[in-house]
Amino acid sequence: MNSGKSTALLQAAHNYEERGQVVLLAKPSLDTKGATSIASRLGVTREVDFLITPELNLRTKFEAECKRVMHDSGRPVACLLIDEAQFLTREQVDQALEIAVLDDIPVLSYGIRTDFLTHGFPGSLRLLEIAHSLEELKTICRCGRKAMFNARKIDSQFVFDGEQVAIDGEKVSYESLCPHCYFDEKNIK
Amino acid sequence: MNSGKSTALLQAAHNYEERGQVVLLAKPSLDTKGATSIASRLGVTREVDFLITPELNLRTKFEAECKRVMHDSGRPVACLLIDEAQFLTREQVDQALEIAVLDDIPVLSYGIRTDFLTHGFPGSLRLLEIAHSLEELKTICRCGRKAMFNARKIDSQFVFDGEQVAIDGEKVSYESLCPHCYFDEKNIK
Amino acid sequence: MNSGKSTALLQAAHNYEERGQVVLLAKPSLDTKGATSIASRLGVTREVDFLITPELNLRTKFEAECKRVMHDSGRPVACLLIDEAQFLTREQVDQALEIAVLDDIPVLSYGIRTDFLTHGFPGSLRLLEIAHSLEELKTICRCGRKAMFNARKIDSQFVFDGEQVAIDGEKVSYESLCPHCYFDEKNIK
Amino acid sequence: MNSGKSTALLQAAHNYEERGQVVLLAKPSLDTKGATSIASRLGVTREVDFLITPELNLRTKFEAECKRVMHDSGRPVACLLIDEAQFLTREQVDQALEIAVLDDIPVLSYGIRTDFLTHGFPGSLRLLEIAHSLEELKTICRCGRKAMFNARKIDSQFVFDGEQVAIDGEKVSYESLCPHCYFDEKNIK
Repeated sequence: MNSGKSTALLQAAHNYEERGQVVLLAKPSLDTKGATSIASRLGVTREVDFLITPELNLRTKFEAECKRVMHDSGRPVACLLIDEAQFLTREQVDQALEIAVLDDIPVLSYGIRTDFLTHGFPGSLRLLEIAHSLEELKTICRCGRKAMFNARKIDSQFVFDGEQVAIDGEKVSYESLCPHCYFDEKNIK
Repeated sequence: MNSGKSTALLQAAHNYEERGQVVLLAKPSLDTKGATSIASRLGVTREVDFLITPELNLRTKFEAECKRVMHDSGRPVACLLIDEAQFLTREQVDQALEIAVLDDIPVLSYGIRTDFLTHGFPGSLRLLEIAHSLEELKTICRCGRKAMFNARKIDSQFVFDGEQVAIDGEKVSYESLCPHCYFDEKNIK
Repeated sequence: MNSGKSTALLQAAHNYEERGQVVLLAKPSLDTKGATSIASRLGVTREVDFLITPELNLRTKFEAECKRVMHDSGRPVACLLIDEAQFLTREQVDQALEIAVLDDIPVLSYGIRTDFLTHGFPGSLRLLEIAHSLEELKTICRCGRKAMFNARKIDSQFVFDGEQVAIDGEKVSYESLCPHCYFDEKNIK
Repeated sequence: MNSGKSTALLQAAHNYEERGQVVLLAKPSLDTKGATSIASRLGVTREVDFLITPELNLRTKFEAECKRVMHDSGRPVACLLIDEAQFLTREQVDQALEIAVLDDIPVLSYGIRTDFLTHGFPGSLRLLEIAHSLEELKTICRCGRKAMFNARKIDSQFVFDGEQVAIDGEKVSYESLCPHCYFDEKNIK
């Protein structure tokens, strides 16, 4: 959505670390953009502590990482921050809830709500179902209204069919639109 | 969830009407409790203007109702209020978005997020995907934490399998729980 | 503001009591409307447990009431609910924070933000400064926009001078306006 | 509060500019830190378009800047972003509301709610009274709870008297605390 999700994640990590606390950063391996780093559009970049492959048990992995941090530095992990959380599996979101509830460690997950056809990603849908709290990072449409949808363009033309996942790059791009402009482009009246 | 959704809906209707504006109230026919009325647990009750059957085109029906109101009273409809919106079909939520965007009339939808197994209802999932804004009505768990899940009881025993829809009545009841207490009852560690 | 504050308070009380918990209701004695009761515009009414006079130490009074409840019923108080909280003194809001933080009992305070000249009431200002979280109950302006200000009318004419407090009654009334309509009526361009 | 206000402001500016829109950045001259720039703790820095001196009429200045931009670039200004908005005067916040309502241009104001004694700054109080919407940027206390207050330290010792404004530097620093830890340090029981 280009609303500043990665910036918000990196700022939250910074807030914890300024208070002397340790955080872990992760993102799904499905997000191939930026390889193993989280890159804010403001120009700040940082490596993740681990990638989340589709078959990974997130809780088991996280608890192992916590032990490693404790072993190496003698300090507990205060928070898990996940970028591009829409690409988590439903099971991984359930594991994130177990980390938050049973291990009592906050999990901050940043992601987009829906794909270019306004359908939820698997990770987003599960997060919308079970997150303790939902917070919207706003951005604007070309018309000035609040953007809500993430329309796909191929060679600068809006398209309304295709695979759910297409990482933006040379041919593919996305534009955040409000429902009015989205309906306009899709010719819904 | 027993958080006061119907009360909030009836209050919102009252706010519009105090300013001399006309509202329409509706609910899915799938909600058999209270027949054609919306009943607040505070004791206030009001008839809906129409029931939403699963095959109904919500936008077509709403626009017909608006015409009827205009014909009868000479006044436009200012708002559509929907109770038990989790029971809408996905198509009906899309039609509600069209009412809000293309007909430019606010649609306020009140419903619960997830079923007794923490899975979204069809209407809730679509609303979580495309609503302009999401607002949480909070209630508390027996332990004092914020409740998030809606656990089902049969004859006062928590159950974790069964159909998605079971309207509360003599045998079936629901209790709003926080994730800690929900995990406790489900024996997740 | 006629946004449903008293309804929300009575619903919150109901939510606690449905879970078998005890709540206390209070309001400043400065609010002479309805004497010792809290009246929702939906038609629900309930007596307060105590009135808050300007010189009252809210924390001392609340702790005494908790002891009384424990003595009478053997049960702890789970929540304090305050209506018309804009009429609290600054000291009483500080005492409410002490109840929330030091006695660890939630205090839910419902009130209006500003007077008919858009200036905060003493209690509102202190709540805006130190409340753990602020939640807006929305209502609409005559034009359909979100209302923000509470304009005073005397004999149905808008007025822009007078005392801060004038309880609505035979001559005095209030209308919730958005800033556009408020500026219109006040002739600000 | 070290919650990332300047980061959020710079990200919002970036969001507008990515959509080809022009924004203006400003801050009160009372904030002498960073001279004429807005500096995010993430390392991003940007010059303001103008400083707001205490006697400046914000609306007159903003409208003149809009004309200058239109003259120079042929483009309208889409948004005004103000950092350290707690240092605005009450009159300047009123002027900001006039820009938003009468000139129909959004004004995003970022600032801290209260000083080291939990009292509002003049600009914050007026913003709390009349802002269209209030959004909290959260950060954490040393204990893990949500921070709410901004305690002052001189030579690393907490102090509870002094002037309202003391920009952090060599001797003076601030620590974001939750009410529990703030009460602890101030010895309130």
